[in-house]
Amino acid sequence: MKVLLLICDGMADRPVAELGGRTPLEAAEKPNMDELARRGVCGLMDTIAPGVPPGSDTAHLALLGYDPYEVYTGRGPFEAAGAGIELKPGDIALRANFATVDEDLVVRDRRAGRIQEADRLAEALRGIKLRGVQVIFKSTVGHRGALVLRGKGLSHEVTDSDPHQVGVRAMQVKPLSRGAARTARLLNEFSRKAHEVLEAHPLNEERRRRGLPPANYLLFRGAGMVPELQPMDQRFGVKGACVAAAALVKGVCRLAGMEVLDVPGATGGLNTDLDAKRDATLRALERNDLVLLHVKGFDEASHDGNASAKVQLIERVDRTLGELLEAADLIAIAVDHTTPVSVREHTGDPVPVLIAGPGVRTDDVRRFDERSCARGGLGRIRGKDLLPIIVDLMGKGRKFGA
Amino acid sequence: MKVLLLICDGMADRPVAELGGRTPLEAAEKPNMDELARRGVCGLMDTIAPGVPPGSDTAHLALLGYDPYEVYTGRGPFEAAGAGIELKPGDIALRANFATVDEDLVVRDRRAGRIQEADRLAEALRGIKLRGVQVIFKSTVGHRGALVLRGKGLSHEVTDSDPHQVGVRAMQVKPLSRGAARTARLLNEFSRKAHEVLEAHPLNEERRRRGLPPANYLLFRGAGMVPELQPMDQRFGVKGACVAAAALVKGVCRLAGMEVLDVPGATGGLNTDLDAKRDATLRALERNDLVLLHVKGFDEASHDGNASAKVQLIERVDRTLGELLEAADLIAIAVDHTTPVSVREHTGDPVPVLIAGPGVRTDDVRRFDERSCARGGLGRIRGKDLLPIIVDLMGKGRKFGA
Repeated sequence: MKVLLLICDGMADRPVAELGGRTPLEAAEKPNMDELARRGVCGLMDTIAPGVPPGSDTAHLALLGYDPYEVYTGRGPFEAAGAGIELKPGDIALRANFATVDEDLVVRDRRAGRIQEADRLAEALRGIKLRGVQVIFKSTVGHRGALVLRGKGLSHEVTDSDPHQVGVRAMQVKPLSRGAARTARLLNEFSRKAHEVLEAHPLNEERRRRGLPPANYLLFRGAGMVPELQPMDQRFGVKGACVAAAALVKGVCRLAGMEVLDVPGATGGLNTDLDAKRDATLRALERNDLVLLHVKGFDEASHDGNASAKVQLIERVDRTLGELLEAADLIAIAVDHTTPVSVREHTGDPVPVLIAGPGVRTDDVRRFDERSCARGGLGRIRGKDLLPIIVDLMGKGRKFGA
Repeated sequence: MKVLLLICDGMADRPVAELGGRTPLEAAEKPNMDELARRGVCGLMDTIAPGVPPGSDTAHLALLGYDPYEVYTGRGPFEAAGAGIELKPGDIALRANFATVDEDLVVRDRRAGRIQEADRLAEALRGIKLRGVQVIFKSTVGHRGALVLRGKGLSHEVTDSDPHQVGVRAMQVKPLSRGAARTARLLNEFSRKAHEVLEAHPLNEERRRRGLPPANYLLFRGAGMVPELQPMDQRFGVKGACVAAAALVKGVCRLAGMEVLDVPGATGGLNTDLDAKRDATLRALERNDLVLLHVKGFDEASHDGNASAKVQLIERVDRTLGELLEAADLIAIAVDHTTPVSVREHTGDPVPVLIAGPGVRTDDVRRFDERSCARGGLGRIRGKDLLPIIVDLMGKGRKFGA
């Protein structure tokens, strides 16, 4: 059985005044989603727990059946895995930003003018050694990067060096527990050495000459320990793949042992190439049991407070969904979290969810939206229960007991 | 207050094509269940957790208010308790099959021709001693039996010796953890000694002469450690009894401190004597607060893929239920797990549940079936929450806090 799990990042909303009190899902023309709602079973889902706004990483951990409260310690491991770094359980990983600091280490630009050539800088950082641990640094998209420390006795319980604002000094990394003192020391040492290397780098001299902010510092945040996640195929007997642009989502899927496709044109924004994602999904469905197709642009529209852009993307994604209906036996649509255009941030409202395919106990829900799904046959479930429910409908549920 | 808890094993289903897309519950004429649905409050229940197919043992542990993830390590203790062996917390118990092996210990018949006279063999096995532990063996129905080891330092973390197929050698029991090496050694020693005793037993000589497969070997599976279960009367202040044929269910109820009635004619199959079970239930209600009446045949019909047999049994059980209505003040109907006739195995779909009696907040549900109950006032609950809800309606809920 082939399964398509469509995850619409931040698509759920609250009633919007400019949409006449409807949510974007209620306002959009989306015949395919509504047809699946009629053919399937719907419900509400608390991705993490009621009232808890999920992050992208914790939400997707839950949607892949893991308990984020058990396995999540910070975003770093998922950034690093999303960047393609091969990780081992116990590694400490951090998100890094190339940034601009002045001679007093005061942060002038947290993204170094959204630098695009950070790869050249990352190469120079490879020479940095730290005593007793292995260091892996990789630049990803734009000013972004990931740092991994591998070795014994490391801890993720350290503070960010990123002050999360400009005009103040870059912070020292501080230990949050006794066992983290050495890790904090190593990270501060890496920061110092990286600053030296970056200050002297020809690319930054060139940027200064051109009036661009130099990328002369690395700001760290989101330290986390790489968890030991039982891979999807071992845990559920399901071979899975992921079609996504967002690095965090790709990282979660990679750590869950899924195939992660790189899709040129998939941007994670409103301008993403949905045809390219559709084609990648079709290819992935041929060689996998389950494909997670992640569309991120809803979240961007919500962060911009743009309800009509959100409605339009729902309608575009619905058309793409229509082109995928024939390729899967069972289709589930979920939202990872609510991002109301009125709030512009993730909130903890439950999200609509549907499952359509052989064996499902249909209900009376005729439209896929927040309020219609509240009356659905699934009732109100948790995010971490969705994949077990799908796996069970695939005929791969494993009995607990005799 | 007298409570009847009717548990219909595997009665829930998925839509069935030959029933016009209805489930057996939706297709059956069951005026009494539907009347209780009208008078009561309904809901859906995940006996263990969403998407997790329950076993009979884990399901009934949950339905009696225990968390199976905390107390369940294997079926053995419930088989042994169901066979009437008095157990102590910490005992290691295994399900045993009398089987036929050839001279190379290759399994020829996992049930020794469904031997009926195993009692005589069990008696001979009583002479087997193992150093440092007490050994209890009991044969139950047909080729079935249970083995219990009692002593210090034992572990349930051992493999089955039952290869679960014929034509291959009986397996050695292997330890799954360091602390289990001695237990594995003791079980292999018991197997060896039992083989010697059984090979030489006059009953087996007689069987060979008559062309029947000798019951010359014991195959073990489902090792578990007997958990410490707080008895129902201590935990809830409720005196409970169980009317069931299935050994696993009887075992769970016995370990929960309930009175377990033996009902001649209760077979656990489609031919079970429902009148005898009704009478036993009436007797048990006289001297108990709560009687769990378990009917197993639905599961058999489902394993056979026989939808119409399932519908007929629902209608028969409904008539029996009608004869019990006057005897209880509060009636709850639950299903322990879904067994779709299309799948023929337990699945993880949620099951319908209802509670009718004084004080319940009625809802609009007018029929007791999977899809009607999805709109019920109970919402979607967990199996382990059902008994506390019933106990609270009995006026015996214990306040947590001041």
